Amino acid sequence: MSLKQWLALLAFYVSYLFFGASVFYHFEHKLETQKRAEAKQNQLSLNDLLLKSFKPMDVSLRDSILNEISSFCEKSVHNDTTEYLEKPYIWNFYHSFFFSFTVCSTVGYGNISPTNTFGRMFMILYALVGIPVNGILFAYLGEFFGSMFTGLYRLYHLYQKNLNKHYKPHQFGFLAQILLYFCPGIVLFIFIPACLFSYFENWEYSISVYYAFVTLTTIGFGDFVPTFGSLQEQQFGVFFRCYQVFIIFWFITGLGYLVMVMGFLAKGMRSKKIAKLETLVASNLRSRNERLWQSIQRDRIFVRSIFDELYLLNYKVF
Amino acid sequence: MSLKQWLALLAFYVSYLFFGASVFYHFEHKLETQKRAEAKQNQLSLNDLLLKSFKPMDVSLRDSILNEISSFCEKSVHNDTTEYLEKPYIWNFYHSFFFSFTVCSTVGYGNISPTNTFGRMFMILYALVGIPVNGILFAYLGEFFGSMFTGLYRLYHLYQKNLNKHYKPHQFGFLAQILLYFCPGIVLFIFIPACLFSYFENWEYSISVYYAFVTLTTIGFGDFVPTFGSLQEQQFGVFFRCYQVFIIFWFITGLGYLVMVMGFLAKGMRSKKIAKLETLVASNLRSRNERLWQSIQRDRIFVRSIFDELYLLNYKVF
Repeated sequence: MSLKQWLALLAFYVSYLFFGASVFYHFEHKLETQKRAEAKQNQLSLNDLLLKSFKPMDVSLRDSILNEISSFCEKSVHNDTTEYLEKPYIWNFYHSFFFSFTVCSTVGYGNISPTNTFGRMFMILYALVGIPVNGILFAYLGEFFGSMFTGLYRLYHLYQKNLNKHYKPHQFGFLAQILLYFCPGIVLFIFIPACLFSYFENWEYSISVYYAFVTLTTIGFGDFVPTFGSLQEQQFGVFFRCYQVFIIFWFITGLGYLVMVMGFLAKGMRSKKIAKLETLVASNLRSRNERLWQSIQRDRIFVRSIFDELYLLNYKVF
Repeated sequence: MSLKQWLALLAFYVSYLFFGASVFYHFEHKLETQKRAEAKQNQLSLNDLLLKSFKPMDVSLRDSILNEISSFCEKSVHNDTTEYLEKPYIWNFYHSFFFSFTVCSTVGYGNISPTNTFGRMFMILYALVGIPVNGILFAYLGEFFGSMFTGLYRLYHLYQKNLNKHYKPHQFGFLAQILLYFCPGIVLFIFIPACLFSYFENWEYSISVYYAFVTLTTIGFGDFVPTFGSLQEQQFGVFFRCYQVFIIFWFITGLGYLVMVMGFLAKGMRSKKIAKLETLVASNLRSRNERLWQSIQRDRIFVRSIFDELYLLNYKVF
């Protein structure tokens, strides 16, 4: 695939993600609005019931009971009509885009997922196109990263040779090669981004590392997912937007890197197969050359016999 | 990889899954027991508080209020000490095994996930070995399914030829081939198992189809996961055990089938590359043959000139 074709496919993929995001956003945002209204209704009616039930009681005791119930339920039973309005929507456009991406890359966190039959059926059709496109795109991205990586590695050797004429590159075994490929990537794509996750999400560092690992291996549990905190936007302002963009960027490059490593491993395994094939072809070629040489020899003998006869003829004539 | 090696790897993988299951079961079951005790404590103290708060009130009204709160919270606030004892554990051995498998296959439902730092770190180390082993195992399983599938396809053609001497196999295009590979698999691995899921899980059929699709593509949202119902074991008895085993079996064959289809698609794409290479080699060969032929022609002309000279010599002599 040429770079032009790849870029065309990338453009298609990005517009496909935006298309998916628009559809999911349109339908799920509406459903979420309905569900929020219902939840609000339930909350208010329960609050009403509770207030009616404890009649002659002082206000502070009543409030403390409501607090107890709220903390037990992990949602408010107070008469706070503003809370639901302030909490940001789960199905905003960014999360819809993020969701489309997690579908196509098969990460599938599942902290948000389609909530009705239409959404589920659309998701299936959407994934049927998105997963192969994503796969092809990342396969070539991985290849590109691989050639870049080996290029850098070669440059490093050249540089070392310039410094020291007697420099000889190390020959690494299979396991050492794996470590060589993995270590810089693990630092770059897991340990460094994990600092950012800890900062923006207020997670323990071990949880951030765990999240990065679970995402890049496409396991995607969804027990921890970034950018879903309800106060992040107010707290970090414009940096939060940068962080949201960074996550998409990290996701793409990280997956590309992982595909690259997988490609190296597969090549290492395949190269053994190819070596076997090569010896087979070489032995075939050798035997064919020998046969060719034999037939040439035969021809030479035949031609010489003709010449000999002709000369004999000449001699006879003389 | 020979069948023997594959079976050895399979044996290793299965024991690795059992090992993971034991570790997760051991730690998470303990944590779950603690959490259940805490939840029970919270429930009872809230119940106590509520009963104290509505003092002079008739029992049926009080119960109806408790019911309202319970349904709002989606967990009981009654003083029912038996409920928590009866509800089956989430982290039983089967679910631990299932969890290990979802980690190694990168499905990662995430409806259950490690709950403390030790569990998370262990999961990372566990996946580092499990994912590659799973990948290699399924790559070969997919290859095996592929050869079985093409074998069956060939047998069908032979059978058709025996019936009808003039039978010619259809030549399918790329898209038609994809459909040919996909259709039987979709019926066998999605639509038929979905009936079972609907029966045992009491899901709508569309949800069962959605679950099967989300699982086999390794998206794994985890919004619907089988065998987690709290009453299934009592309701279906021994059939539930069979169903649990069936799910593992379905999972393995379904993933193998999907890898097979992916392999066919990749081969189809690669075969285009190979076809290009072949035409290149063929044109090289042709040009080389032509060059060879030209040189042979030259040699023939040269030899003929010698012969002619010799004959001339003869004539001269005569």
